[in-house]
Amino acid sequence: MALLLDQQFAPMPNNEIATKTFLESVSHLPPFFDCLGSKVFAPIKADINGNITKIKAVYDSDPVKYETLQQILLIEKSIYGSEWPKVGATLALMWLKRGLRFIQILLQSLADGERDEDNPNLIRINITKAYDQALKRYHGWIVQKVFKAALFAAPCRSDFLNALTKDQEVAEEDCLAKIHQFLINFTATVDAIYEMYSIMNAELDYLV
Amino acid sequence: MALLLDQQFAPMPNNEIATKTFLESVSHLPPFFDCLGSKVFAPIKADINGNITKIKAVYDSDPVKYETLQQILLIEKSIYGSEWPKVGATLALMWLKRGLRFIQILLQSLADGERDEDNPNLIRINITKAYDQALKRYHGWIVQKVFKAALFAAPCRSDFLNALTKDQEVAEEDCLAKIHQFLINFTATVDAIYEMYSIMNAELDYLV
Ligand SMILES: CCCCCCCCCCCCC/C=C/[C@@H](O)[C@H](CO[C@@H]1O[C@H](CO)[C@H](O)[C@H](OS(=O)(=O)O)[C@H]1O)NC(=O)CCCCCCCCCCC
Ligand SMILES: CCCCCCCCCCCCC/C=C/[C@@H](O)[C@H](CO[C@@H]1O[C@H](CO)[C@H](O)[C@H](OS(=O)(=O)O)[C@H]1O)NC(=O)CCCCCCCCCCC
Repeated sequence: MALLLDQQFAPMPNNEIATKTFLESVSHLPPFFDCLGSKVFAPIKADINGNITKIKAVYDSDPVKYETLQQILLIEKSIYGSEWPKVGATLALMWLKRGLRFIQILLQSLADGERDEDNPNLIRINITKAYDQALKRYHGWIVQKVFKAALFAAPCRSDFLNALTKDQEVAEEDCLAKIHQFLINFTATVDAIYEMYSIMNAELDYLV
Repeated sequence: MALLLDQQFAPMPNNEIATKTFLESVSHLPPFFDCLGSKVFAPIKADINGNITKIKAVYDSDPVKYETLQQILLIEKSIYGSEWPKVGATLALMWLKRGLRFIQILLQSLADGERDEDNPNLIRINITKAYDQALKRYHGWIVQKVFKAALFAAPCRSDFLNALTKDQEVAEEDCLAKIHQFLINFTATVDAIYEMYSIMNAELDYLV
């Protein structure tokens, strides 16, 4: 998982996101959930992997036509009519971006040193912040309850940071610096995707 | 899902279970979890599908050598040495049989008319019985907590029975009679697999 921190997302000339580069970058993220250390998170990893596979299948069907994420949304909108946006790679990316936002907020919160002073070595507070901002509103009360239960499987802070830099001897401050570095292009990418969904009127807020 | 009730398991001459027939029969079971009506159960369906895929891959690698489930266990035991039984199709079937037992106990309890008199149209009591007997002891407290949360997503009794006989107009008593019929060979098959694991000393009780 040194991977995550060594795999920078690409900068985006004029907010266009190249599908190929994006897919290559996000393919390193599912192992992030292994850093959480419990098999309980396997369904989340599988869900995100499913999103990536779906977007990749659309891209591979015509790499020129689907060269940017913007083109995917535009073309799918014209293909699918009233079914859109709850369909195709548009739907997969709609959910994927929420998982990416979750990861982004969690890492940002850790890098900023946000802590529960009573339990300084737990990261529940950081995970809960990320969940509340990125996902909670799309989850019905049952999935929210499942989240609360799964939260107990979260690792402690030091184990999580070690997992993120696995196979490397890295001091905590170096790890946090690496996270900050990683977040620059990553956050810009996630923001750009959210903006695109907003501009294209492609965001939905149904519950699962 | 009329499927489930129309797809009888095969009788077993002298307790030998033919792998090919078994795989064909269990392949109709994952949709059972769709009858529960909520996407919350998708990870369970995926887990069971994974077990089936794994056993099928071993079978397909040499259909003669792996003709019966018994042969799979015997051969894998000799191949894998001390890694066995937490490996290969032996491990996949170890977990699959627990999911099958869960389905069996749930259907049996419904067919027997077991009910929560205060909530006669709920099936939580039947699901909980099946969970307690088939799975709970293999789950750590966090997964048990997740189960308790997921239980709220269970459908009411009438919806569940209707889903089981989808696309057919069937009165409740006919549905229950079909379940009884289905359970005969199904229960015998599940029992035989449990017996085989016991005889072969292949059962493990680690927690997930
Ligand atoms: C024996 C006991 C049994 C108990 C039963 C188990 C119950 C388990 C319930 C687990 C829920 C797992 C999380 C998955 C949730 C998913 O339902 C949602 C929506 O998922 C989307 O749905 C769409 C259709 O509406 C398409 O199919 C999308 O697919 S498509 O590609 O086909 O278009 C798909 O991603 N994704 C999500 O909510 C995204 C989740 C991202 C998670 C980010 C991290 C959270 C970390 C938490 C850390 C504490
Ligand atoms: C945003 C919110 C996020 C929250 C995070 C979500 C957390 C969700 C946690 C969900 C757990 C899902 C159920 C899956 C559990 C699985 O962990 C276990 C063991 O699974 C086995 O593990 C082995 C290795 O030890 C091999 O990999 C097996 O795989 S192998 O084929 O490779 O050998 C595999 O089946 N199977 C099980 O416990 C079996 C489960 C059968 C279930 C039967 C029905 C229960 C019905 C309940 C109805 C109410």
